[in-house]
Parts: sequence; C-alpha cells; structure tokens
Amino acid sequence: MSPETPCLVTDLSQVGSRYDQLVGALPEISVFYAMKCNPAPEILRALRSRGAGFEIASLGELRALQAIGVDPAGVLYSNPIKPPAHIEAAAAAGVWRFGADSPGELAKISELAPGAAVYVRLRVDDSTSHFPLSGKFGTDVEDAYHLLLLAQRLGLRPYGVTFHVGSQCESTEAWRTAIRAAGTLMEMLLADGIELEMVDLGGGFPASYVAGAPPIEEIGEIIAKEIVDLPYRPDLIAAEPGRFLVAEAGVLAAAVVGRAERGDENWLYLEVGAFHGMAEPLQIPGGWTYPMWTSRPSDDLLPYTLCGPTCDSADTFAHGVLLPGTLTVGDVVYFGSAGAYTLSYATSFNAFPPPTQVFVGS
Amino acid sequence: MSPETPCLVTDLSQVGSRYDQLVGALPEISVFYAMKCNPAPEILRALRSRGAGFEIASLGELRALQAIGVDPAGVLYSNPIKPPAHIEAAAAAGVWRFGADSPGELAKISELAPGAAVYVRLRVDDSTSHFPLSGKFGTDVEDAYHLLLLAQRLGLRPYGVTFHVGSQCESTEAWRTAIRAAGTLMEMLLADGIELEMVDLGGGFPASYVAGAPPIEEIGEIIAKEIVDLPYRPDLIAAEPGRFLVAEAGVLAAAVVGRAERGDENWLYLEVGAFHGMAEPLQIPGGWTYPMWTSRPSDDLLPYTLCGPTCDSADTFAHGVLLPGTLTVGDVVYFGSAGAYTLSYATSFNAFPPPTQVFVGS
Repeated sequence: MSPETPCLVTDLSQVGSRYDQLVGALPEISVFYAMKCNPAPEILRALRSRGAGFEIASLGELRALQAIGVDPAGVLYSNPIKPPAHIEAAAAAGVWRFGADSPGELAKISELAPGAAVYVRLRVDDSTSHFPLSGKFGTDVEDAYHLLLLAQRLGLRPYGVTFHVGSQCESTEAWRTAIRAAGTLMEMLLADGIELEMVDLGGGFPASYVAGAPPIEEIGEIIAKEIVDLPYRPDLIAAEPGRFLVAEAGVLAAAVVGRAERGDENWLYLEVGAFHGMAEPLQIPGGWTYPMWTSRPSDDLLPYTLCGPTCDSADTFAHGVLLPGTLTVGDVVYFGSAGAYTLSYATSFNAFPPPTQVFVGS
Repeated sequence: MSPETPCLVTDLSQVGSRYDQLVGALPEISVFYAMKCNPAPEILRALRSRGAGFEIASLGELRALQAIGVDPAGVLYSNPIKPPAHIEAAAAAGVWRFGADSPGELAKISELAPGAAVYVRLRVDDSTSHFPLSGKFGTDVEDAYHLLLLAQRLGLRPYGVTFHVGSQCESTEAWRTAIRAAGTLMEMLLADGIELEMVDLGGGFPASYVAGAPPIEEIGEIIAKEIVDLPYRPDLIAAEPGRFLVAEAGVLAAAVVGRAERGDENWLYLEVGAFHGMAEPLQIPGGWTYPMWTSRPSDDLLPYTLCGPTCDSADTFAHGVLLPGTLTVGDVVYFGSAGAYTLSYATSFNAFPPPTQVFVGS
C-alpha cells in the first residue's frame, strides 16, 4: 500500500548502512549527526542505536535529543553564535562543549557556562561546496589562536578546533587544506603550552544526487593521511555529517495537481514546491538536481518547469526537467536523495501542510 | 510590559483603518482579503467584522475561515491550479467561484464542481511589482476568451476575469493596462452573448516600506476611471488585497543574539532571519527594506550584515543596514511594516520556533 502523498519516505536501514559506511571509511573518527538536516526522532533513534553522537545548533535541538534519552554530555553544540538563554540551559542540562568564533561568544560562554570547553571555528575555502558557509561563520588561524588564548584567560577550556568545508562538498582537496589549517593552529598553541583535545572536521560529506559525489572512501583516505601529519594526535577526532547519512535514504513523493502550457513552457504543478520541501534548489543558480522518476514511466520525455501548489511565483523550483510527456493530474513524481534539508526547511504557506514523514526499515 | 521576543505584534485597529482607507479609495469595489499573507484568526475576524470577504488558495485556508464562521459562499478560490480533492471539498462546503487559466483546470472543475462559476486569470505586465507573479500563472486575452467559451461548453458558468499586477506593485499604470485587457476580453465575449459578472482586480496594492508607495487614493482614481470605460458594468468588482491591509500594522521584534566582526563586515545575529520571518528579502536582488529601529537608539551608526540564529549561511538576509554601532546582545531590533508575508513563510529550522504572534487594538 502506498502512503498518501505528499510524503517523505525514509529507509532507516539505509541510514544505518550509510553510518556503517562512514565509520568504515573514517575508522578513527567519532560521528556527531548534524540533526538539523532531518531531526525526526526515528532517525535520531536509528543513529543513536548505531553509536552516533549528535551535533546541535539550538536548545530546541537538545530538547529533542533529551526526549529520546540522549545524554547531553555527549553532544557538541557547534553553532558559533548562540542565544544566551540557550547556552545557559544547555550547560545546565550537561552540555560542556561549545563552538565559537568571536570574542563576544567567548564572553557569553564564560558568563553562562563557566569553565566550559570551547572549540574555535576556522574559516576555510568552501568554494567547492554547493552551499558555502564561510560568509556567516569562521575566523582565520591567527584570530583562532588569539581566541583560544582569550578562552583560557576567561577560565574556559581551550578544547578544540573545527571548520566546515561547506555543505555537499565535492572536492576532496577542501578537507586537506582545512585539516592543515587546523594543524597550523595546533602548532601555534603548543608554544603556549596548549594541546587541543579535539579536531572536529565539521560536515559537508557529500551525498549522491544526479551528478554523483566523490566516494567517502576517497575522502576518508585523504583525511586519514592528513591526520597523521598533524603536530600531535588529539584525543577526539569528530565529524558532523548530516546529508551524507540521511539524504539518499529518503524519497519524497508528490502528486501532480495540475499542468499548463504557458508559451512554449510546460508547467507541472506538484503537491510539493519550494515552500514544502524543495527549498534547496532555490539556493543554487542552475538548480539542485534530485534524481527523479514517476508513477507513469515513459521514454517520451518533455522539459518541464516544476512548481509547488501555492499561489506564489517564488514557489517555482526547477526548469527544463525531463519527465514523461504523458504525466497527468494524480500521477506521482518521486524525488530521490531527498532525506536531508527538505522537510526541515518546510513551511505551511497557503495552509498546505508539510509532507508527512513515513519510515521503513530499522 | 513588552512581550517576549521574537514576536510579531499586530495592531488590529490599524488593520481596520487600512480596510476603511481602501474602501474609501475604491468605493465600488468588494474586498476579498488574500489571507495567505497573514492567516491569523484574529486578523480574519477583524476584517470580517468590517465586512471583508476572503480569497483562498487552498482547502486548508477555507477550513480556517469556516473555523471562524465565514460562509464559504462568499469566498473566492483564486489559485489558478488546485488539487482535485480541494476543488471537490470546497464545492461541497459551498464555494461556487473558482479561478482558472488552463483547459486542464476547467476540466477538473467541471468534473468536481459541476456548474461552478469560473473566472479566468489574465497574464499582465507585472514588471513594475517587486514580486512578479506572471511566470507561473495567467494567460493572454485570446486564450482567456477561448477558455471561457470552453467553460460554457463544459457546463460551467463563465463568470469573470481576473489578473494580478504582482505583489507590492508600485506603478499605477499597471492597473490601467490590466483593466483595459479585461475590457478587451469582455468585448470579445459579448459577440458570443456572454456577459461577465465579475471583474477581479487581484492584489498587488502596495504597503509602505522604507521606499514608500503610491497612495491608494491615486490607484483608486485610475481604477475608477478605467472601470467607467469598460464595455459594460459587471455586477461585482472585486479586489484581493493582502499586504496593503496588514503589512503596516505589524512590527516584528527580534533580540540580538550575537555580534561578530568578520573582515571589515559587522555581522549582527538576530533571533529572526530568513527562516523565521525575513524570507522576502531573499526574493529581491538588493534586498527588501523594512523600516528598522532598535531598543538602543543612537546616531552613531554602522553598516551591518543581518542574519538569523540558525547555523545556515542561507539565513543571511540583508547587507549594509545602518543601525547603532553600540548594539549588543539582548538589545531588540524592530522591523516595521512586517505584518505580511513574514510568519506565513516561517519554518522551524534548527528547532528555533517561529516568532509568536501578539495582537493589540481591535
């Protein structure tokens, strides 16, 4: 029996096997799931049962973890800028490791979570990722050095270094450069008698969409080699994968609600558009290409403009997508690799509720 | 006492006086509030008590109206492409007027709401609006003519014509051109013995942001003059304002959660960003300028990059905004004219809930 559309079907077995694949490719690394990409409790539980830790960006995310019994002491709070009340409540709950990249954030942490461990976020080259993150966050090695010294003076524990190569990073070179920058920082701190306990590789591990992605084993080899070359071996080498673990496990199913020819364009109106799961395509010029198939397979293809069910023109998310010319109202369009950053970006605009979530496997 | 941030405070008295102003400027026109821009029941009730009708884009919106006692018979269902189940249920509830702009939609309506009244949507020049809508919807006069003849053959009632000059339309000329196109269509249909009962002017009536907007009285004069020149006088002249009625009545308050200097940029991290209310700025190159002020007034201004509380770089929504240099964590930033298209686009990304809604006045 097919679930009612629109829905996101996630195969928990596949989430588990992706976790195993990641741990196999990066055996020295502790995984902290970046839950923002899909915070469904079913996924959190599946990953916890495999041994994953968690990375949070807010107190709300911590509460969702606590609700399924995760110990806050094992959680990394990596958002470099946090609301003061969230720092205080997270520390009270048992979180003891906080990311930072500015003197202001260190001041907040020292006041609201005295003695906490802090890790600085480096700005690294993320130009090879689909979703660069360095504008908003991160600092250079020199600044990071001074921040960790400041942390020490503020009574905080200069604990580690992190970076983010950008979400869906498709260049293995990016990790090499970033880990070397972390090594430079570690070297500088040694002169001050500070040995970092953690190197956190952040996220960015790519999932396969239409264009494919470099194999995780290749990324793992580069990381392993670079870690050997660090000035010393930190106690904890962490990573914060999100998309890698859940994207490919999810299929988003949306029925066709209408079709129209407008000029020489074929417009296809689906139950799901930019406001209800297909937001990432709008962030990338040229669009973001999910593998797609339909309930009415055919070799007679037409280029379609794809949009959602709302009365808003911004709810148009792809152009020139080849799908069967015979598609009609009620047919279902499937988006593969849709497990990450789809429902977590969804709204209820126009009173269309977000797609439901369905889980299979375990 | 100030409400807890983040919150959207809407003055219902101002919604009412904007309604009065609109009706004063366009006395011959029946107002159907485009509820998508802010569907809070408090606003729906305030407008209903003034005599407003409602325009919907989905069955969910109709259900929200029914929940406050609105009679579906007075509702316009203007979304030109509707899920079949929504057409059927809306018709069963008493909605009898449906927008369309394609043969496929007429086929759906004739099957699921036999005998219903239909109005066609014209594609008009919306290049002078901030949010053009014509890519996704609308057809030309010639097509519209054939659609209404087709509607008649399908047993539907060829009821009216509509258009949308684009949201936040700042050119009075746009209405002139659009009404004339409607007049041409009416003229053509007369030869077939069809007299339309409704001309629906759509939305687009502008609210005042930083840049101001042409006065509604000026728009009203142009519309009144053009209506006189129509081939005949339809029974109903409708309009679907949204933003005009509620934008200026709302103030969004968001506390500063962090600050950072990055290169020569001053970054200000607020409780509300692109995912929690400030989505419209991302739709416009150059940004969308809400009037802004703060809880720490000062003449010593700095240009800031503004972003939200999430760990996502896409959550950056304005650049070079001049605000006091002394702003610090906990200060509150206020966005004026924020009553429309803010919370209706909000997500819960990163487990930050959308701002709460607070109402004052009546």
